[in-house]
Amino acid sequence: MPVTLRAIESVFIGGETRCAAGLPPVRARLSQGGEAVLHDPNGEHCVGQMYAQIYRLERPRHALPVMFWHGGGMTGANWESTPDGRPGWLWRTLEQGFDVIVCDAVERGRASWAMPALYGSEPLFRTHGEGWFMFRMGPREGYAAAPAARRPFPGQRFPVAAFESFARSWVPRWAGQEAATLDAYGSLLARVGPVLLVAHSQGGGLALAAACRHAGSIRALALLEPSGAPQDPDWPAQLPPHLVMWGDHMTDHPVWCRYRETVAQHGRAVRAHGGTWAEIDLPAEGICGNSHFPMMDDNSDALCERVLQWLAAQVSRRSPESRK
Amino acid sequence: MPVTLRAIESVFIGGETRCAAGLPPVRARLSQGGEAVLHDPNGEHCVGQMYAQIYRLERPRHALPVMFWHGGGMTGANWESTPDGRPGWLWRTLEQGFDVIVCDAVERGRASWAMPALYGSEPLFRTHGEGWFMFRMGPREGYAAAPAARRPFPGQRFPVAAFESFARSWVPRWAGQEAATLDAYGSLLARVGPVLLVAHSQGGGLALAAACRHAGSIRALALLEPSGAPQDPDWPAQLPPHLVMWGDHMTDHPVWCRYRETVAQHGRAVRAHGGTWAEIDLPAEGICGNSHFPMMDDNSDALCERVLQWLAAQVSRRSPESRK
Repeated sequence: MPVTLRAIESVFIGGETRCAAGLPPVRARLSQGGEAVLHDPNGEHCVGQMYAQIYRLERPRHALPVMFWHGGGMTGANWESTPDGRPGWLWRTLEQGFDVIVCDAVERGRASWAMPALYGSEPLFRTHGEGWFMFRMGPREGYAAAPAARRPFPGQRFPVAAFESFARSWVPRWAGQEAATLDAYGSLLARVGPVLLVAHSQGGGLALAAACRHAGSIRALALLEPSGAPQDPDWPAQLPPHLVMWGDHMTDHPVWCRYRETVAQHGRAVRAHGGTWAEIDLPAEGICGNSHFPMMDDNSDALCERVLQWLAAQVSRRSPESRK
Repeated sequence: MPVTLRAIESVFIGGETRCAAGLPPVRARLSQGGEAVLHDPNGEHCVGQMYAQIYRLERPRHALPVMFWHGGGMTGANWESTPDGRPGWLWRTLEQGFDVIVCDAVERGRASWAMPALYGSEPLFRTHGEGWFMFRMGPREGYAAAPAARRPFPGQRFPVAAFESFARSWVPRWAGQEAATLDAYGSLLARVGPVLLVAHSQGGGLALAAACRHAGSIRALALLEPSGAPQDPDWPAQLPPHLVMWGDHMTDHPVWCRYRETVAQHGRAVRAHGGTWAEIDLPAEGICGNSHFPMMDDNSDALCERVLQWLAAQVSRRSPESRK
């Protein structure tokens, strides 16, 4: 279905300027046919900023935009074409009449990243084998360097034939940057909110924290396989409604068992604080074979529609009075 | 003017898989509420891939898409909103009826980057002061850490009040990756070409090389302040027509004087090989105050229109016979 836009915008927001000092200059040739020049890294640099792309429809059919947060070691490209080239959730959400905001979090993708001397730590690089297991393509021993020799879970819905193409989209990550990332997301929400939030994996855990810190800017949130939850958050007077979606083979992975229990504890706390906590457990419904990336699996369109319907229903259900 | 799209796609393409070995594992906590886990970087990683976003119009008014290549230490976000929030060349080009392809080159933005052990070199980080001078915001001594104390060139067209916002969009870079970048661009052109190419700064120098290597996939190219040129390229039987645009204050910067002379030499060689080489020297025409970023300056719309008209004219002027 064609989509008519009135604007495509982008925003760089958040973070601060810090000064690097005492680092050695480097001689490097930066241009074809140019000479080597002395490159001095000492001086002001941005640290902790993020990036968002905003797609504004000519005639949105919903009052609030949908904002997408990716997971760890990923970028906003997760919501674009699937690795096997089908339309992603960005396009489907525009088709459904929502404005869309796609984020690259601090240190990821177009948001850029700062030198280790300013971050205070080194980046981490995920191997293809680790991704294969962590993203539940198949058992750990089902990974092989040669694509033809890999053994995914039977009935796997992720387009594993396009796994190399997917791996090209992974970016390095740092540990322990949750606070900076949440701060930048807070700045973005203050500028473009309120929103309906869809967040994946690490982004899902951050969204659970943001729902407590920025409850007024997030009217409802859908969490795809959140990989963590805030510890001892400051609970707001009113929480936005939460939806959590889980794929298949969670119990085949010890780390996912732990992450899921962390999230379940948070869910109980959300309910204890009067919030709505809904869950979609796909295999429990008989929908088997989903990986850690529901927005890329072969039933991605159906799952997107379900999430968007739930989000839209949360807003239409609440009267202006109850929304305060 | 609204824009009706039939698709927004993205592509990760190019590069290869390499294996890291012998690196020490790292213990890191990757999830809120999670435990520290052992992170092993040894195994397969992607190296040398790139990313492109493709905007397909419902009814394009031109047969060929416009492809945008950014400069060094930049990403495709350069073509989106200007730092002061005006629509960028991406939007203006869609309005003019062209499909658009926005690229993040190897190692930049959503294209991701590989560990130093696989690249064989360390990243370079540009300071705000270096950017101020190199991008010709003002004289070197006109930079100050405090924005209010900065002194731009008189009549500066770049939105210098939004310089911090612009600096948030800069990404680290590596020296000496031209070959890998050109290879990835070649793979992209083979998949989505032929195109009309608009390339900036380092991307302009790479485009000059690509016009020789992939002459059939680039039907015309517009180079905004190219910062280099290939040395001793293999000249094809027929070159696409070239347009080069230069801003103001080139002679106030010794590096730009050298880069411009390198490009001028290449221009003479293009003409000697029968190619078209057109130049727009803005200050020579009385259009003063343009920085190194014409797509962000206050006359960006007018400059975009001029470039698009020139590109469209190159295609319509050539008969199918002469295009061979």
